Amino acid sequence: MPVGTQGTVKAVTKDQLLSTKPQIILGNTYHLYLRPGTEVLKHFGGLHRFMNWEKPILTDSGGFQVFSLAQSKEIEGKTKPEVIVTEEGVKFKSHLDGSWHFFTPELVIDIQEIIGSDIMMPLDECPPYPVSHQFAEESLKRTVRWLERAKKHKKNDWQALFGIIQGSTYEDLRKESTLRTVELEMDGYSIGGLSVGEPAELMYKMTEIVTELIPKSKPRYLMGVGTPENIIESVDRGIDMFDCVMPTRNARNGTLFTHYGRLNIKAAKHKFSEEPVDKDCDCYTCKNFSKGYLRHLYNAQEITALILGTIHNLRFYNKLMEDIRNSIKNSKFKEFKREFFEKYLK
Amino acid sequence: MPVGTQGTVKAVTKDQLLSTKPQIILGNTYHLYLRPGTEVLKHFGGLHRFMNWEKPILTDSGGFQVFSLAQSKEIEGKTKPEVIVTEEGVKFKSHLDGSWHFFTPELVIDIQEIIGSDIMMPLDECPPYPVSHQFAEESLKRTVRWLERAKKHKKNDWQALFGIIQGSTYEDLRKESTLRTVELEMDGYSIGGLSVGEPAELMYKMTEIVTELIPKSKPRYLMGVGTPENIIESVDRGIDMFDCVMPTRNARNGTLFTHYGRLNIKAAKHKFSEEPVDKDCDCYTCKNFSKGYLRHLYNAQEITALILGTIHNLRFYNKLMEDIRNSIKNSKFKEFKREFFEKYLK
Repeated sequence: MPVGTQGTVKAVTKDQLLSTKPQIILGNTYHLYLRPGTEVLKHFGGLHRFMNWEKPILTDSGGFQVFSLAQSKEIEGKTKPEVIVTEEGVKFKSHLDGSWHFFTPELVIDIQEIIGSDIMMPLDECPPYPVSHQFAEESLKRTVRWLERAKKHKKNDWQALFGIIQGSTYEDLRKESTLRTVELEMDGYSIGGLSVGEPAELMYKMTEIVTELIPKSKPRYLMGVGTPENIIESVDRGIDMFDCVMPTRNARNGTLFTHYGRLNIKAAKHKFSEEPVDKDCDCYTCKNFSKGYLRHLYNAQEITALILGTIHNLRFYNKLMEDIRNSIKNSKFKEFKREFFEKYLK
Repeated sequence: MPVGTQGTVKAVTKDQLLSTKPQIILGNTYHLYLRPGTEVLKHFGGLHRFMNWEKPILTDSGGFQVFSLAQSKEIEGKTKPEVIVTEEGVKFKSHLDGSWHFFTPELVIDIQEIIGSDIMMPLDECPPYPVSHQFAEESLKRTVRWLERAKKHKKNDWQALFGIIQGSTYEDLRKESTLRTVELEMDGYSIGGLSVGEPAELMYKMTEIVTELIPKSKPRYLMGVGTPENIIESVDRGIDMFDCVMPTRNARNGTLFTHYGRLNIKAAKHKFSEEPVDKDCDCYTCKNFSKGYLRHLYNAQEITALILGTIHNLRFYNKLMEDIRNSIKNSKFKEFKREFFEKYLK
């Protein structure tokens, strides 16, 4: 899922985004609640109509943003978001204007019902990494209690609600969180609290523990992941869905993904290159422009560079997922994985 | 002509630009010479191929940029571009890295032959405004001598070369400049040194003086102009061609042109508006998005806002020129002018 934080995927129009063939995009409840706000979204009849987007939208719960983005203060010598967690919910200060807000599991559902997302996430607590076993345990239990409240509060049948599995990097807690969440028979299952600084191997291990306990008929979503390597390894461990800012953010920094690894398009070596960014890519950028031209646009700080880079990276990621799906349909995933890495990691 | 300073019109891709239906774009010789440089442009076989642009390109001579953009220093208490004008040419310091460069009428033609622009401009001296009669006279005479050298140096028949008429706001000098330039039988005539801070009425007066002396069969180009009002008034005085950063620059600042005047799309009054920016506009932005949505994107500082705003403003300007051309073909220009201003200035 390309990330469309504030009602657009950054640096592209709706039609440029569609040209990269996404199945669904992600919106951020925290950002949309703060700006444009629910009054505007309600007036426009939801986010789909507001942004003129007809394909599905998944919204996160804002939990992760509250714990990572909200206004910070110095706590015991460290800068931490100024959040107050109680059983009722979480109080936080807006990163935009410092105003106080209070998210409850119920309010977060209300907001997502106004947004009208096709898939909603429940409010969860996102502990930092690393964190003590005790904290992680209390936190995941609260997250389950919040999920029960969210499920009870949800009104629309047509909006799916996933459960979010936490438990940090503790095997027993990941198992406990999965079992308690699966018990609530959600429409799908998200894995939160990974890709937050832990080694990739630990992320894969936790993913494996969780996916083994989720019913095979339900979608599994690994939140905030990741690199092409992370995605392929996680699919291998049973994951179906991902979201990540990597394709769009990296594009704006000049890092472009190709089937032959990443490249820094600003590098001098591309100055005279008449080749496309990725000869195996069918995106608008690769079909129309050379690396030499893109390098010039990036170095001249042209907004057009960010548009063209974003289109390419989004198409690379969406194509990767297409290729993964096709390889699974044809029972050739292992072969695809080996061949992909042979080129990509060379 | 939409302005494509550094090998792209800012904040749009080639196809978004084409959707606004331009006939031709402008490139800046000064910028392209400094970056990517003639070595790169020569390697790629010119600017058309470098940027994958098939429609015509006009390039300015770099004269105006040398006198306005080149690195400045404090001279007699005022900050002025650090330029040294001699009969041979003009020495200036790059605004990018402070390196010294020397433009001669011949070099500027060489550069534009490498760029491969369809219409070239000769090196001219652009005096500041206001300027003394004596300075303006010496300057315009040097500009004519430079034009003779440029014309003599030019190699390709397929590239047009215009003459640039100077003379500041002095009637006698504008006449003298026009007569001396027309004598050289150029492919077209540009009017430089206007829209530099003088009152609009003075600009129109100078334009009228000049256009009366240019053969009717040759295109007349008023450089760096302007607002929709300026354009219509100048067409009324015999001008055929314009370039201006106004549609693109204003779009990036949130000022959008409509048939009902300009609007600041960031304003609170558009918060709940489901209307398009301009109900009389057929651009991608107006056909797909509301003022309320655009306002949100601008206020959230999304790059997508700049793309959508640029598409709209470019289409507004190109449509204005289409409407002007059609009204002239149908001998209804005066009627068009009256009707346009009735709506636009209300």
